[in-house]
Amino acid sequence: MSERPLILISNDDGVQAQGIKELTRMMCQLGNVVVVAPNGPRSAASCCISPLTTIIVELLKEEEGLTVYQCSGTPTDCVKLALDGLLTQKPDLVVSGINHGDNASVSIHYSGTVGAAIEACMKQVPAIAYSLKTKSHECNFRPYEEVVLQTARYALEHGLPQDVLLNVNFPEVEQLKGIKVCRMGRGRWMKEMAKEGEGAYHLTGYFLNLEPEAEDTDYWALDHGFASITPLQLDMTAHRVIESLKRTPLTPP
Amino acid sequence: MSERPLILISNDDGVQAQGIKELTRMMCQLGNVVVVAPNGPRSAASCCISPLTTIIVELLKEEEGLTVYQCSGTPTDCVKLALDGLLTQKPDLVVSGINHGDNASVSIHYSGTVGAAIEACMKQVPAIAYSLKTKSHECNFRPYEEVVLQTARYALEHGLPQDVLLNVNFPEVEQLKGIKVCRMGRGRWMKEMAKEGEGAYHLTGYFLNLEPEAEDTDYWALDHGFASITPLQLDMTAHRVIESLKRTPLTPP
Repeated sequence: MSERPLILISNDDGVQAQGIKELTRMMCQLGNVVVVAPNGPRSAASCCISPLTTIIVELLKEEEGLTVYQCSGTPTDCVKLALDGLLTQKPDLVVSGINHGDNASVSIHYSGTVGAAIEACMKQVPAIAYSLKTKSHECNFRPYEEVVLQTARYALEHGLPQDVLLNVNFPEVEQLKGIKVCRMGRGRWMKEMAKEGEGAYHLTGYFLNLEPEAEDTDYWALDHGFASITPLQLDMTAHRVIESLKRTPLTPP
Repeated sequence: MSERPLILISNDDGVQAQGIKELTRMMCQLGNVVVVAPNGPRSAASCCISPLTTIIVELLKEEEGLTVYQCSGTPTDCVKLALDGLLTQKPDLVVSGINHGDNASVSIHYSGTVGAAIEACMKQVPAIAYSLKTKSHECNFRPYEEVVLQTARYALEHGLPQDVLLNVNFPEVEQLKGIKVCRMGRGRWMKEMAKEGEGAYHLTGYFLNLEPEAEDTDYWALDHGFASITPLQLDMTAHRVIESLKRTPLTPP
């Protein structure tokens, strides 16, 4: 690659979050960077989009090799807006994060960080979501920089398989034990609603790992000090049950 | 099943939408029904949840065999609230819809209708999402009633495979040609941002079917007058690329 690649960055914690600033600093080592991120927190935005409202975008910064916009929409809106409104060329890579909080197991479905990467994948741009298992807003991201750069460089040089994105999670450690390619573990959120008063609730709860001994899962990696790389696919079809469903009374011959 | 089963209903068009009223009427033929649905449209809410706000729930109706609540949250919030706050027993089935607009191919990722069913599936309750390919708010749902009842009855009697939900779509026709068990087709939304003015946009666009000739896809079924039943799974792992990723420089031995 002779010219510097173009890298689009988004997230769901908002443009002011530490995680996206660190990711921006890292990506500026690899190419020209455009950030299009929400103007505030959009945690757990999933692949939500905003068909019913006007989406407002503001230019925050424009300097050599780095342009930053904030947007009133969701992470997915941000990526759509970048690819179909703001950028004059297709980016070579879309990265999302670094999220404050992990996005492993079923939490992937709720994640706006992963949602932004899914959107890029739909548009056939190599995409990686990065998340850190932490509850803190201020973290030390240095232990993860090498893996972030290495995965981004890999996607820039080799691309990713069609309709596949990478979901990378980090445990909060001073030094990673290594990197594992993992599957999504099975898990479940428990006791998720706290009653505030009559007819008023807020989300809470804890995550239950349904297969804590399975060493090939993302959660096992995180629990044991490894970064996890999980390839995700757009196709959610349960192919393994298609043939058996065809033999049920659901579809009379 | 000797006692009447308990059926939970949600949607993303809101509690006042025609589709959920029709689905409620149908489900009342099969069991006792509790509706917990958003208090207004939440189209394209995906699996979005509301961790940052108080969720308000109001009882709208309570009669023999039918209770209706509206909720200030998303479809996924509604299901969490029902399962972990409002219901005193686990439902036998969760159904979502009937959505005004299809949820096939990649649109599945944006769908709040599917999001509600995904949430139920995570909680190990058989779940079905129903959607109608229409642009109208007022539709004739009679042509689909038999398939809705048949799929719901099947899930009540036989359950569904672990971590699998059903996504059912209908074409807008006077008479269905039949029912097909399908995979999610490959597709892409195009030209999605319309500029309203300087820095102001709204979502628009059209869907491009990337494999219009593939007769095993959901979109083919809809385009040819069939109802589509697509089994979806919670596991988004791209298992087919795990081994090849392990052999890349991403994970040094």
